[in-house]
Amino acid sequence: MAAWRKGERGFMSIEIERKFLLNGNAWRTLGSPVLYRQGYLNRSKERTVRVRTAGEKGYLTLKGISRGIKRREYEYEIPKADADAILRDLAEKPIIEKTRRRIEYKGLFWEIDEFSGENQGLILAEVELDSEDQKIDRPPWIGEEVTHDPRYYNSNLVLFPYTKWDLK
Amino acid sequence: MAAWRKGERGFMSIEIERKFLLNGNAWRTLGSPVLYRQGYLNRSKERTVRVRTAGEKGYLTLKGISRGIKRREYEYEIPKADADAILRDLAEKPIIEKTRRRIEYKGLFWEIDEFSGENQGLILAEVELDSEDQKIDRPPWIGEEVTHDPRYYNSNLVLFPYTKWDLK
Repeated sequence: MAAWRKGERGFMSIEIERKFLLNGNAWRTLGSPVLYRQGYLNRSKERTVRVRTAGEKGYLTLKGISRGIKRREYEYEIPKADADAILRDLAEKPIIEKTRRRIEYKGLFWEIDEFSGENQGLILAEVELDSEDQKIDRPPWIGEEVTHDPRYYNSNLVLFPYTKWDLK
Repeated sequence: MAAWRKGERGFMSIEIERKFLLNGNAWRTLGSPVLYRQGYLNRSKERTVRVRTAGEKGYLTLKGISRGIKRREYEYEIPKADADAILRDLAEKPIIEKTRRRIEYKGLFWEIDEFSGENQGLILAEVELDSEDQKIDRPPWIGEEVTHDPRYYNSNLVLFPYTKWDLK
């Protein structure tokens, strides 16, 4: 989430990120895993509304239309107990569960998400960039790029979870 | 918005309210009018997500399914500038605009909303209650009850604004 400006209780940012599959298991010894649970209150093309818990924190995030790999994003921290109740009572099912590791590699931050629940078996790495044409040094544990494959969009992993991909 | 518990940055509440048309113009001399602008990021039956500006403040509000006149609600304050940008770029159009007066009458708070824009001409009063069977003293400027008429739900005033009702 690059180029953000801090707001009173949240921030607006333009999100520029690329998404990859993993290569091997060397990444498992890096970073500190944190449990993320997230669900959607809207998954339309024009706007998504996401509620998330990350460890002991809760967040509400609004995103607009993607333009290339850029996307406008607004994120606000909310009480963890509210986020839990919203996930339980209001969010579309199933909820997405994943364990996230945040790893710095040659000046860039990589987030590795190991999914559980309905997306068990899926592992994805995302890197946050400052500009669309920014050069990246690929860590040795990074595999094929899937930035533009809609099956891997978080919002689509609700409708078509990874454990059901081979049934199609 | 009765029975709320204060959260770190917002609150969860059960909303119990009744809605009325107005009678005469005596209410116009009461309260301090504040401009509200609001739009929806989701208007489904299961969940609504609303962004609102009230004077110089901004809010994000999530509501669940209505059960009778009760409805679970989560509200969070966000920066006014974010709310303006979300209304402009992300919310479904048209935006609802209204001038709200908050008036105390015999121990209860009444909110009178005078709509502008696409709902020009519509004036509604809402009263917030602590329980479904609470007795209310009707102020003399309160007219017909419309609590259960879906045309008057705020979320429906986006799809079918008041100025178009007689065209149906």
